[in-house]
Amino acid sequence: MSTATQRPSTTLDTQAHCEALATNAQRSAGLLVNTDGSARNAALRAIARKLVERTTAIVADNARDLGAGRAAGLSDAMLDRLTLDEKRIAKMARSVEQIADQPDPVGQVIEGRTLPNGIRLQKLRVPIGVVLMIYESRPNVTSDAAALCIKSGNAVILRGGKEAMHSNAVIAECVRQGLEAAKLPGDAVQLVGTTDRAAVGMLLKMEGRIDLAIPRGGESLIRAVVEQSRIPVIKHYTGNCHVYVDADCDDEMAVEICLNAKTQRPGVCNAAETILFHKKAAERGLVYKVCEALDKKGVEIRADERVRTLFAKAKPATQEDWATEYLDLIVAIGEVPSVDAAIEHINKFGSKHTDAIVTSDIAAADAFVQRVDSANVFVNCSTRFSDGGEYGLGAEIGISTDKLHARGPMGAADLTTYKWVAHGSGQVRT
Amino acid sequence: MSTATQRPSTTLDTQAHCEALATNAQRSAGLLVNTDGSARNAALRAIARKLVERTTAIVADNARDLGAGRAAGLSDAMLDRLTLDEKRIAKMARSVEQIADQPDPVGQVIEGRTLPNGIRLQKLRVPIGVVLMIYESRPNVTSDAAALCIKSGNAVILRGGKEAMHSNAVIAECVRQGLEAAKLPGDAVQLVGTTDRAAVGMLLKMEGRIDLAIPRGGESLIRAVVEQSRIPVIKHYTGNCHVYVDADCDDEMAVEICLNAKTQRPGVCNAAETILFHKKAAERGLVYKVCEALDKKGVEIRADERVRTLFAKAKPATQEDWATEYLDLIVAIGEVPSVDAAIEHINKFGSKHTDAIVTSDIAAADAFVQRVDSANVFVNCSTRFSDGGEYGLGAEIGISTDKLHARGPMGAADLTTYKWVAHGSGQVRT
Repeated sequence: MSTATQRPSTTLDTQAHCEALATNAQRSAGLLVNTDGSARNAALRAIARKLVERTTAIVADNARDLGAGRAAGLSDAMLDRLTLDEKRIAKMARSVEQIADQPDPVGQVIEGRTLPNGIRLQKLRVPIGVVLMIYESRPNVTSDAAALCIKSGNAVILRGGKEAMHSNAVIAECVRQGLEAAKLPGDAVQLVGTTDRAAVGMLLKMEGRIDLAIPRGGESLIRAVVEQSRIPVIKHYTGNCHVYVDADCDDEMAVEICLNAKTQRPGVCNAAETILFHKKAAERGLVYKVCEALDKKGVEIRADERVRTLFAKAKPATQEDWATEYLDLIVAIGEVPSVDAAIEHINKFGSKHTDAIVTSDIAAADAFVQRVDSANVFVNCSTRFSDGGEYGLGAEIGISTDKLHARGPMGAADLTTYKWVAHGSGQVRT
Repeated sequence: MSTATQRPSTTLDTQAHCEALATNAQRSAGLLVNTDGSARNAALRAIARKLVERTTAIVADNARDLGAGRAAGLSDAMLDRLTLDEKRIAKMARSVEQIADQPDPVGQVIEGRTLPNGIRLQKLRVPIGVVLMIYESRPNVTSDAAALCIKSGNAVILRGGKEAMHSNAVIAECVRQGLEAAKLPGDAVQLVGTTDRAAVGMLLKMEGRIDLAIPRGGESLIRAVVEQSRIPVIKHYTGNCHVYVDADCDDEMAVEICLNAKTQRPGVCNAAETILFHKKAAERGLVYKVCEALDKKGVEIRADERVRTLFAKAKPATQEDWATEYLDLIVAIGEVPSVDAAIEHINKFGSKHTDAIVTSDIAAADAFVQRVDSANVFVNCSTRFSDGGEYGLGAEIGISTDKLHARGPMGAADLTTYKWVAHGSGQVRT
């Protein structure tokens, strides 16, 4: 079933391969721009069926990756993220079907009017063109990213992690089969077919042929992409998210939100990493209550001097702790003298992802909302709600920590641009 | 009246100066985010007044630039673009006032809903933060760009052309005085105060401190910015715009639109540079009519072999001509066998700026609109309408040829981003 370009190789001429990927992607994008939403949805449903039909093959190829991963000494957490079983594959297929169920972003008239000279002007939503997606270990990103790009009428070049290469290859085959079953170009979704690390650098230089690069993964991966790229990049840094507990607040609500934000799923980007308390909240015993609750859930607490006097079990926090995304049952806790100091701390150490305030004071809430410079700013709810599904946007390609083009949860509509279309009847400018 | 940072110097420590620019800009952005639209508009009106009040000083500083420009052998066209007189300064002031009159983009609720769990979610328009604007000779860009950034609540660092340095410095002084008169931070608009070319490279590395770079000028300037930048860039390439005259069309309309697009103002980016004819339009004498009309207006015609058999005075066009933005009374003219061939030519040689079709055939118009991959795609009207003012968007910072964030005419609203704001009452995720 494999094709030469789908299976990673170390013998391909990397430059020639990248050229071919770009050429095929551009040609496919030119064809996709001419398709109706119903054809793109038919492809998505065919892909979902292929994923289910070929479950045995996917599990087998995944086993090869898992074997190599174990031999290479991957951690249990990494191996877990890499693992595909029948249940997870069914979930991937459902996710693709759900993307098919979403409304079509392409062709939407964003705004429009008739100008005084009679020209009918429309701002029309259209696909971006060719997307380059660079990601790390989880193989389900392959089908999710492919589906979101197909939905939005884009061609995509996928560069997954080496450790998932066989899993990604078989998933990409299912995608190609689904596309071709719906008479859409199979090359609309291509995997980079070489493990040569130089390929990414070459693709990132293809300004004008590739329209957008989306790196998802660790900070070092994203920084390397930004440094090399001449293509616009939308960055998905993981989240150093904060909960700030204000002087005036419902103490029980504060405990619940801190616990949920930190422990409900500590390994994801919208989990909290730092909790800040107004000194008055600390003075009335709320720091102790929150620390005790976190401690009971097995969370390691790293705190500033003041918090350590209130909860003796806490370890000392270093400067580095304030900037760290633990993605684990560890939290940094500090005390601040005011909401202003909390905002300043968050804007200094945070990653512009998601930050929450717990307060009953309107002025504090307003200041926090207005001045915290993050993609998602929450009042009195858990940071864990920062999610395209929760927002009603459907599946997301990630949570952008950038400010340009798309910010926060990024769905199929964020993979589009627009063009200005004017219909006249011979108007000229005087 | 001059301040040390406003007057260009060659003795400043460039790195220290760039650090100070970024620090001041970030602090100002933090203050601007807290301002109401009325305060920002008051600053704009004060700036407009200052420009008029200080006309004599501006003309005097402009004379220094003109003297240096003449000594350096600038062309008459360049000197004309550089020149400021009372009338032009009044126009600059009016432009700033018109920006004050526009609706405030900041604080707009782009979308919003109450989620099933009761969380009230809003997608709220907010300033981007710190903008770096890099441009060439025309000094009016200094006040226009400053005004659009103030309007949208952003701090801006301006890097104008060396040839306009005294003019830009005095205009920036007026801007600072206007800001301070309205009690807004004077550092919200700063000129790069050194002529050291390394400054731009240093600023473009300040990822996380500067949020957006906008280069406006020649292709080589823009390419250099893209190569160096780690900051997102919105490119404003000048336009290689096309008019395609289809087989079926109103001949008189075709002549009018071709003439207007090429000759009404040849030096601007939305003027046409290439005209393509369907072979049937050529066969019935339309090529000759258009060429004759252009020739009468003094336009030099560079044509393919087929068109030269129809209009003998035309010079031969080289491959380079199809890719050239003349910004002058020169046009490239070619014949194509079909609308498909026209679309292919435009997507290959164009600059994704503005392209028009003249046709009475719905299918041809639809194909052109759908498949020409440009920011502005027009049916039966002149390319010259591609303009923020004509679109009803108000003053524009330029016409983006990019696909990300902003495409086509880019006004104050395009200098904003958004944040997702959620108001809850203690919701946690289960």
